[in-house]
Amino acid sequence: VEQALEQLKGIDKEILLLAHTAALLSWDQETYMPVGALEERSEQISLLQGLIHRRITDPRCADMFSALEANPDNPAGAARFSEIERAFVREAFRRYSRGTRIPESLVVEMARTASMAQGVWVQARKASDFSMFKPHLEKIIGLLKQIAECLGYTDSPYDPLLDEYEPWMTTREVEDVFCRLKQPLVELVQKIVDSDRKIDESVITARFPEQTQLRFNLLVLKAMGFEFDRGRLDVSAHPFTTTLGVNDIRLTTRYNEKFFPTSLFGTIHECGHGLYELGFGPRIKGGLLGNAASLGIHESQSRLWENMVGRSLRFWKGFFPLLSETFPGVLKGVTPQTFYEAINAVKPSLIRVEADEVTYNLHIILRFELEKRLIAGELAAADLPAAWKEESKKLLGIEPAADADGVLQDVHWSMGAFGYFPTYTLGNLYAAQFYAAMRRQQPGVEAEIEKGNLKPVRSWLADNIHVHGAVYPAGELCRRVTGEKLNPGFFLEYLEKKFGEIYGF
Amino acid sequence: VEQALEQLKGIDKEILLLAHTAALLSWDQETYMPVGALEERSEQISLLQGLIHRRITDPRCADMFSALEANPDNPAGAARFSEIERAFVREAFRRYSRGTRIPESLVVEMARTASMAQGVWVQARKASDFSMFKPHLEKIIGLLKQIAECLGYTDSPYDPLLDEYEPWMTTREVEDVFCRLKQPLVELVQKIVDSDRKIDESVITARFPEQTQLRFNLLVLKAMGFEFDRGRLDVSAHPFTTTLGVNDIRLTTRYNEKFFPTSLFGTIHECGHGLYELGFGPRIKGGLLGNAASLGIHESQSRLWENMVGRSLRFWKGFFPLLSETFPGVLKGVTPQTFYEAINAVKPSLIRVEADEVTYNLHIILRFELEKRLIAGELAAADLPAAWKEESKKLLGIEPAADADGVLQDVHWSMGAFGYFPTYTLGNLYAAQFYAAMRRQQPGVEAEIEKGNLKPVRSWLADNIHVHGAVYPAGELCRRVTGEKLNPGFFLEYLEKKFGEIYGF
Repeated sequence: VEQALEQLKGIDKEILLLAHTAALLSWDQETYMPVGALEERSEQISLLQGLIHRRITDPRCADMFSALEANPDNPAGAARFSEIERAFVREAFRRYSRGTRIPESLVVEMARTASMAQGVWVQARKASDFSMFKPHLEKIIGLLKQIAECLGYTDSPYDPLLDEYEPWMTTREVEDVFCRLKQPLVELVQKIVDSDRKIDESVITARFPEQTQLRFNLLVLKAMGFEFDRGRLDVSAHPFTTTLGVNDIRLTTRYNEKFFPTSLFGTIHECGHGLYELGFGPRIKGGLLGNAASLGIHESQSRLWENMVGRSLRFWKGFFPLLSETFPGVLKGVTPQTFYEAINAVKPSLIRVEADEVTYNLHIILRFELEKRLIAGELAAADLPAAWKEESKKLLGIEPAADADGVLQDVHWSMGAFGYFPTYTLGNLYAAQFYAAMRRQQPGVEAEIEKGNLKPVRSWLADNIHVHGAVYPAGELCRRVTGEKLNPGFFLEYLEKKFGEIYGF
Repeated sequence: VEQALEQLKGIDKEILLLAHTAALLSWDQETYMPVGALEERSEQISLLQGLIHRRITDPRCADMFSALEANPDNPAGAARFSEIERAFVREAFRRYSRGTRIPESLVVEMARTASMAQGVWVQARKASDFSMFKPHLEKIIGLLKQIAECLGYTDSPYDPLLDEYEPWMTTREVEDVFCRLKQPLVELVQKIVDSDRKIDESVITARFPEQTQLRFNLLVLKAMGFEFDRGRLDVSAHPFTTTLGVNDIRLTTRYNEKFFPTSLFGTIHECGHGLYELGFGPRIKGGLLGNAASLGIHESQSRLWENMVGRSLRFWKGFFPLLSETFPGVLKGVTPQTFYEAINAVKPSLIRVEADEVTYNLHIILRFELEKRLIAGELAAADLPAAWKEESKKLLGIEPAADADGVLQDVHWSMGAFGYFPTYTLGNLYAAQFYAAMRRQQPGVEAEIEKGNLKPVRSWLADNIHVHGAVYPAGELCRRVTGEKLNPGFFLEYLEKKFGEIYGF
């Protein structure tokens, strides 16, 4: 039995090395690779993914899991192992089960379909014509239904898709949480829209030179505790964080000289992800448990830093002097308060990635409800644009005139990534709940932020969340850290207080 | 039989994708990787190398080669295949034979020994103490002798080592060529030392700002025909060229603001390598034949561009105006002629990588003779420093006082790379012979260089050398391109003419 565990760890180690190598191929593709290399790069990535898949589904694993007494009813295996070993077996068994239940032919067809659909999506979005994309979306939905059947579910075919990104969470749980969030959010947005307080955003659209933005980004990353001997910041068209090694976490950002928030808050966001990946504890580093508990938890780290810390008045009380010093001409006459208001203006808008903290989650609820209905067969792809407009009107009070500003705006569905969207809002909710716990457990932390000292934030997150990696499923982690299960009340309270002050109600 | 060929091509394709991926891991390590990532990066590279080795030595290949009628006496297989197919079988069989003849335990021990020896070499060089490195060198030599026995040879145990870098060439052939080179070189150096012409080098040690050097490098790369949609130029401590994909050739350089030649001629040199890799013909691209014929031929491309083109008077007649424009302050009062002389000063010196075109090859002859004796058991590692000094005195007229400036200066032996050094000088010889053929076959080419037009150089090299990749062994390629086998006379004639003019004899 000990031997089975060692063998399983050996396979896991090789998977990790291959996965980090595949991540380098992708990172390079997004940052430095010359354009002509694209075709072979796709082949290189496919080959690596194939090698990884072969190891995940290694037939010898069946015997190992049976020796370890792991099965669908008891994925963590024999009770005599330590907590960490049982968590490892649980995650390895989950990965093996998902990998072996889907026949390879279906995996290949999904990959091919998604690859083609992504190309078509780019064209369709450019032409703002959903009808071009529709047959591809239909094919993707059909394949996802097959995949859901292969993986199995008791309640909803959306469950096994969600489980890919938010392991061990059910559709029902997301519905409960989103249901408690929706109406209060709609009402909060209405209050803001009705407010007669007008925010002056001109300060953030002044010209901030790219090289100087980079310098300021690096200062903030340093203050956040990003370790430059274990990571880097580069430029890419779409910002992301990726792990190329236990000690090699790469962030990217993009620069917009005429809109300051893009790069700075993008960088803080990615660094939030990066600190999580840098912080896995020594006992779990370099293996399957040296991973996020879920995408929702991952996103909680980026959102907590970006919004709850980075977009707070106290952060800017601490960092505004440094900002003015770095951009001496641009910020003449601007106060921390007016800067703070400018970066927090709320306004219902059509595009998710440009949305503010309040309306953002309504964009997510819209997508979650539509994709659930698509997978359940309650909504046909042909009726999607109309349903999108109707929901948008209901939730945000506005509706897109063009498909490009509505149903075609996100890449996710073209990649077959159904079940991904809810993790963004789960991230916001976890973030608020974690932040509240941090403030309770470490009352001086906000005073330190106001002094420009972010170290206590990082240590608290590292000690309470990062160190555990994937040892605890997200729900259990949340209970251990905050004393209760996921509760959207913390996020609503945070929003009402912050935006009530800004908009004067 | 056709099926065996297809299977072999399938394996080769996978090897290529894995090799390019491994090359990315190394490229990133030398350019952008954070220092903390080193340990895992080594594991990633080892894993990839293991996967490649497993495919090279795939036991199914034995049947394929036997179906293809390939064997040690007839490595190219059945005569009814096309020239390119036979060349493919020949190279695949060579790779398979070398891969299978050395037992895996020996491969692993060599890798481990070399890895440790490299670390020790760095320390020993820093301390300038050969005795620290000696036991490691002894172990490496012992393992290389075993490897030579496994690979087999008829004449000299140095043969199969040389064959790793210069396939199908024998030690005897190298000896013949070097023998014809040595005495005339020693005499030429003496004539230069005795000359009363003194060259003013002050112009190249003025301050050339790094960013401006980069700009000039890019202009020269463009003029050489480097394709930036299929490649890049980055910075690394030790310049190199590497292939990450059929359409992804990466060059690196380093900058020295107080010594202009380092970066420019390094960049031209690497671009010479890069153009070769960019130029493999469509029928051989993306496989085993889309490779250099040998390291000597590869080096001929870099040396031809660096020295015969880049360090020529006619090149600077063409490019000096651009240079003066790019560095307006620095070059006031300097003429193409004085600049040309400054970058071509000859002086016997101790360090190979800093040596000029003339003395460089004496450094190589010294190493070749010593490493041959080490492998043959005619020289003990313990006696190496004394032998080095003696040879150095004989060939260059000077000898190192410290090990760091002598026997410890190069990394190659610590890596187990015996048989590599001669390819540098073979490169110079092939370069001169190719250059002479180009001038004969395309008489206007030098007038174009003088106008700053390098396109004819690239096209001639592409059409006559690059396009063939590894289809012809180096010797055969040389005969096809120049009409005769490797002949050091061309190089000697080139040196005598060039340096006779500069030094006035």
